[in-house]
Amino acid sequence: MHGVGVGRGIAAGKALRMPDRLTPPTDAPLEGDAEGEVQRATDALHQVAGDLMSRGETVGGEAQDVLQAAALMAQDPALADDVAARIRAGVNAEFAVQEAFGQFKQMLVALGGYMAERATDLDDVAQRVIAQLRGVPAPGVPMSDEPFVLIARDLAPADTATLDLDKVLGLVTQDGGPTSHTAILARSKSITAIVGVPELLDKVSDRQLIIADARSGEVTLDPTAEQQEAAEAERIKRAEVANAPITPGALADGTPVQLLANVGRPEEAAAALELGAEGVGLFRTEFLFLDSKTPPTVEQQTEQYAAMLRAFEGKKVVVRVLDAGADKPLAFLNDDDEENPALGLRGIRALRANEKVLRDQLQALADADAATDADLWVMAPMIANAEETEYFVTISREYGLKTVGAMAEVPSIALQGSQVLERCDFVSIGTNDLTQYTFAADRLLGTVAQFQDPWQPAVLRLVGMLGDAGAAADKPVGVCGEAAADPALAAVLVGLGVTSLSMSAAALGDVRAELKSVTLEEARERAARALTAVDAAEARRFAAGA
Amino acid sequence: MHGVGVGRGIAAGKALRMPDRLTPPTDAPLEGDAEGEVQRATDALHQVAGDLMSRGETVGGEAQDVLQAAALMAQDPALADDVAARIRAGVNAEFAVQEAFGQFKQMLVALGGYMAERATDLDDVAQRVIAQLRGVPAPGVPMSDEPFVLIARDLAPADTATLDLDKVLGLVTQDGGPTSHTAILARSKSITAIVGVPELLDKVSDRQLIIADARSGEVTLDPTAEQQEAAEAERIKRAEVANAPITPGALADGTPVQLLANVGRPEEAAAALELGAEGVGLFRTEFLFLDSKTPPTVEQQTEQYAAMLRAFEGKKVVVRVLDAGADKPLAFLNDDDEENPALGLRGIRALRANEKVLRDQLQALADADAATDADLWVMAPMIANAEETEYFVTISREYGLKTVGAMAEVPSIALQGSQVLERCDFVSIGTNDLTQYTFAADRLLGTVAQFQDPWQPAVLRLVGMLGDAGAAADKPVGVCGEAAADPALAAVLVGLGVTSLSMSAAALGDVRAELKSVTLEEARERAARALTAVDAAEARRFAAGA
Repeated sequence: MHGVGVGRGIAAGKALRMPDRLTPPTDAPLEGDAEGEVQRATDALHQVAGDLMSRGETVGGEAQDVLQAAALMAQDPALADDVAARIRAGVNAEFAVQEAFGQFKQMLVALGGYMAERATDLDDVAQRVIAQLRGVPAPGVPMSDEPFVLIARDLAPADTATLDLDKVLGLVTQDGGPTSHTAILARSKSITAIVGVPELLDKVSDRQLIIADARSGEVTLDPTAEQQEAAEAERIKRAEVANAPITPGALADGTPVQLLANVGRPEEAAAALELGAEGVGLFRTEFLFLDSKTPPTVEQQTEQYAAMLRAFEGKKVVVRVLDAGADKPLAFLNDDDEENPALGLRGIRALRANEKVLRDQLQALADADAATDADLWVMAPMIANAEETEYFVTISREYGLKTVGAMAEVPSIALQGSQVLERCDFVSIGTNDLTQYTFAADRLLGTVAQFQDPWQPAVLRLVGMLGDAGAAADKPVGVCGEAAADPALAAVLVGLGVTSLSMSAAALGDVRAELKSVTLEEARERAARALTAVDAAEARRFAAGA
Repeated sequence: MHGVGVGRGIAAGKALRMPDRLTPPTDAPLEGDAEGEVQRATDALHQVAGDLMSRGETVGGEAQDVLQAAALMAQDPALADDVAARIRAGVNAEFAVQEAFGQFKQMLVALGGYMAERATDLDDVAQRVIAQLRGVPAPGVPMSDEPFVLIARDLAPADTATLDLDKVLGLVTQDGGPTSHTAILARSKSITAIVGVPELLDKVSDRQLIIADARSGEVTLDPTAEQQEAAEAERIKRAEVANAPITPGALADGTPVQLLANVGRPEEAAAALELGAEGVGLFRTEFLFLDSKTPPTVEQQTEQYAAMLRAFEGKKVVVRVLDAGADKPLAFLNDDDEENPALGLRGIRALRANEKVLRDQLQALADADAATDADLWVMAPMIANAEETEYFVTISREYGLKTVGAMAEVPSIALQGSQVLERCDFVSIGTNDLTQYTFAADRLLGTVAQFQDPWQPAVLRLVGMLGDAGAAADKPVGVCGEAAADPALAAVLVGLGVTSLSMSAAALGDVRAELKSVTLEEARERAARALTAVDAAEARRFAAGA
C-alpha cells in the first residue's frame, strides 16, 4: 500500500485503529427487565468514569484536567437518575443515555459561557458510555499501554488534543493529503506519518504488525522478521542522522544548500537557531501591521527589525516587505470591494499604490541594518515582471539597501525569470501562491484543494525555469514555501536549481538529513523524473524511483 | 511618436482635437450692463441651436433626431427667461446658463421616465452654450466639413454616439490601451486607430497634418509631401488587400491558417459567413443557461445546437460546453460564497461537480450532430491538466462525439501541454483568462488593468509551449481570445505554432489581409523577437522589427 509520506521517519509496530463513530441508538422499546437495564446503565457510567480518571492519571498535565472533568460528568447523580427514569419509562439503556446526555447538553448550552464550552465534552462521554454498553471500543483516539501505529480514516483537531505522543510510533490515514490536519500535526511534532492510503481501513486490523516508511510512502502489513529487522536498523540509522551534530546544509557530495527558517516574530529566533537555522529565509513583517488601523511608525518598525537582526548576527536575514491583500487585507492599504482579492491590488501592487508605507518600511529596514551586524536581504511579494522588479530595486537602493530581490509567486515571473534576475540580486519562490495561480485554484477553497500540492509537475517546471535563470545569472534562487519542508521534495528542488531552502524550524533536521543522503547528480535525476509526471502523486513516485 | 495600433489601416489628414471639458463658470458678480449680457446669452443660445440643427441635417438618421432634440432645448423660451432673470439678478451669462440648465435638469430627472433619460443631454447643450459665450471650441466630438484624424485624451462611450464615422479618417488617443473603449470601438467599426500615445496632446495642434499607421503604431506629425504620397499609396494598397475576394486564411507562402468566428447565438451565423468565417472557433453555450433557474432540457438544447450546425453545413463548429462561474455564475451550478470566484469551482470543475448538466449537454450535442452535417468539435473550459482532459474526453466519447478538446486558460495546461495533447484532439487558447491567471490580475479590475494585454511576453511563451506541443503531436492548436483579432499579433501567434484563429467576425478581413503579407518564416522571426521583450509594448515593437 502507498500513500503520501510526511517527513522521512520509519515506524514499525502493532496497528491500533481509531474506531469510527458509533451508529446512534434507536428508541426500540425495552424488552427485558427494567431494573436489570438500569443496573447495566449504572455500571457502564461507573466504568467509563473510572477509565477516564485512570487515563487522566497516566497522562497527567492539562490533559488530566480535561479527562477528570469528563469523568465527573459520567458520575453526575442527576444524569444517572435521568437515565434510570427513562429506562423505567420503557426505553433501552443506550437510547436513555443518548437522550439524557442530549438534554443535559442543551441545558449547558443555555447557561452559556464556560459551561457551554464544556457541552461538547458531554457528547464524547455519552459515546463512551454507549460503546461500553454495546461492548465495542470507544470512539476517539484509542488507549494502549504499549507503543502503537495509529490507523485512522483521518484525524480531526479534537482527536489529537489528547493523543499521547509518547505511545504513537506513527500515523497512517486513509484520507487526507499533504496539507491535511494530520500532515501538519505530524510535521510540527516530527511524527512519522503517511496520509491518503487508499483502502487502508479495509485491510488493517487491530494489533496487526505494520511498517510505515514515510520517505517512500510505503505501508507494509505483516512484515517478515527480516523486514522488521531491516526497518529497525533503518529507523536507528535515520534517527542517528537526524540527531547528528548540526552542520551547514549540504548534499552528499558537499554541494552547499543553505537551510533557513521562516520566522514571523523576533521572539521565534532563539528556537530557530537551536534547530540549526543558518539564517532567516522569510521574515514576514505583517505582524507589525495587522493589529493597527494605521501603519506603525518608522521608529516602531526599526526596533522590531533590529531585534530580529541582532538575534541572527553575522547571518543572512531575508525580510519580506509588507504582503497585504487577499486573505490578509489591511484597511489602510487594500480595497475591500475587489471581486477576487487574490487577483487584486495586493503585495507590491498595493505598496506601489501607497508608496509612503513602502518607503517608511525601507527606511526602518535601512536604519535597523545600520545599527546591527546581520546580512540583511530585502524582497517584495507578488513581483510579476521585470518592470516591477526594477521599481522595487530602484526604490530600495535609494535607502542604501544592498541585497534586493523578488518573491516568485505569480507565474509570469518564472516565464521571464532571466529578465527579472538581470535586475535584482536574488529570487525566492513562494510555492503556495505560485501553485494557486498556476492552477487558478484558490488555496483556501476546499472544493479545488486537489490542485494545491507543491509536487504538481507544472509548478516544478516553473521552479526549474527560475533555477535555470538563476544559474545563468549566477544568482541565488531560494524556496520559502511549504514545499521546502518536505525532505523528498527538498532534494528535487535542489535538483531543479534551487540554492537555499527556508522552512518552519521544526522541519530543518529531516531536510538536512535527506539532503546529506543525495548527490547533486542524483537530485537532478530525481527532478528530471518528477518533471515527466502527469500529476503530483506520480511526481512523488517518479522522484523516489518507484 | 508611438502607441498601440488597432487594426492595420493607415490614416493621413488634418488633425482635429477633441477639446477637454470646460472649467465650470464661477458666480463672479456681473460688472457690465445687464441687458447687454442678456443679449449675449440669447445670441449664444440661438447660435448653438442653429449649429445643432444644421449638424443634424448633415448627419441625418437617428443622430439627427438626437441633435434636433438638443437644439429644441437650446431654444426653450422658459430656459431663456430663466437665464435672463438670473443675469438681471447680478450674475454673469456663463454662470446663469450653468445654473438655469442645472435647475431644468433637476426638474427633468424628477419627472422620471423618458424625460429623465434626456436630462444628461442638457449638460451637453449647456457646455456648448458656455463654450460659445467664452469663444472656445465646444467640448465633445468636434465637427468638421472635411475628413479629419480625431485627436483626444480618450473617448468615452457618450462621445462616440454622435461621432460621424464618414468624416473620421482615424482616431489617435493619448490614454487607453488595447482593451479601452476607443480600441473596441475602432475594432468593431474597422476604424484606423492608435491608442496610448504619450504626450500626444502636448504635441498636436488643430489642423496639423498627421499620419497614423496602425500596423506599426507610428504617428508622424507634419509629414513631407513624399511621406504623404507614400501613406496614400499604402492606404490604397491596404484597402485593396482588405477588400480582396474572400479566400481561406493563409500566409504569403500558402501555409493555411483557418480563420473562424466567435459566435454567441445561432442568429449571428449569417453575418459571420458573409465576412468569410471558415467556421466557428468558439460557440459559447452560456446564452442557453443564463436566463433560467434550471438548466434547459436536452430537447431545447438540441434545437439550438442544430440551428447553429445547420448554418455552418460542411464547416467546422467548435462548441464550448457551459462555462459557468466567476463573472457569470449560475444558481444551479455555482457556490456564491467563494472568496475568489475566478479561482473557484468554475468551468469543467463546476460541470464535474454537477455531472448531469454536462451529460445532458453532451447528449444534446450528439443528437444535434446526428441530425446535421457540420463538423462538430467539442471542448471544455478551464481544463488544467491531463487528468481533467482524460475525464472530459472519456465522457464525451461515451456520447459518440468524435473531436474533443480542451480550452487553455489555466497556466498549468501550457506547462503540461504534451500530456494534454496526448489525450485529446485539439487545444484552443483563451488569451484573456490565460493572461489573468498568468499575472494573477483580475481581468475586470481597473487597478491591475496594465497586466491584461495579450502581447505580454509571458503569455506568448505559454502560447509557444502549446504550439510546440501541438506540432509534436500533430494536432491543431487554436486561439479564440481577443488576441486573435489583432492582425499584428495574429501573425506572431501563427509564428508560435497556432494553426487557427477565431475572432469577432468584423476583425476577419484585417487579419486575413495581414496574414497574406507574411511568410511562415517571417512569422516565426517576429514571434522569436517578441518573446525576448520585457513587456507588451516592447513585444509589439520587436515584432514589428522596430
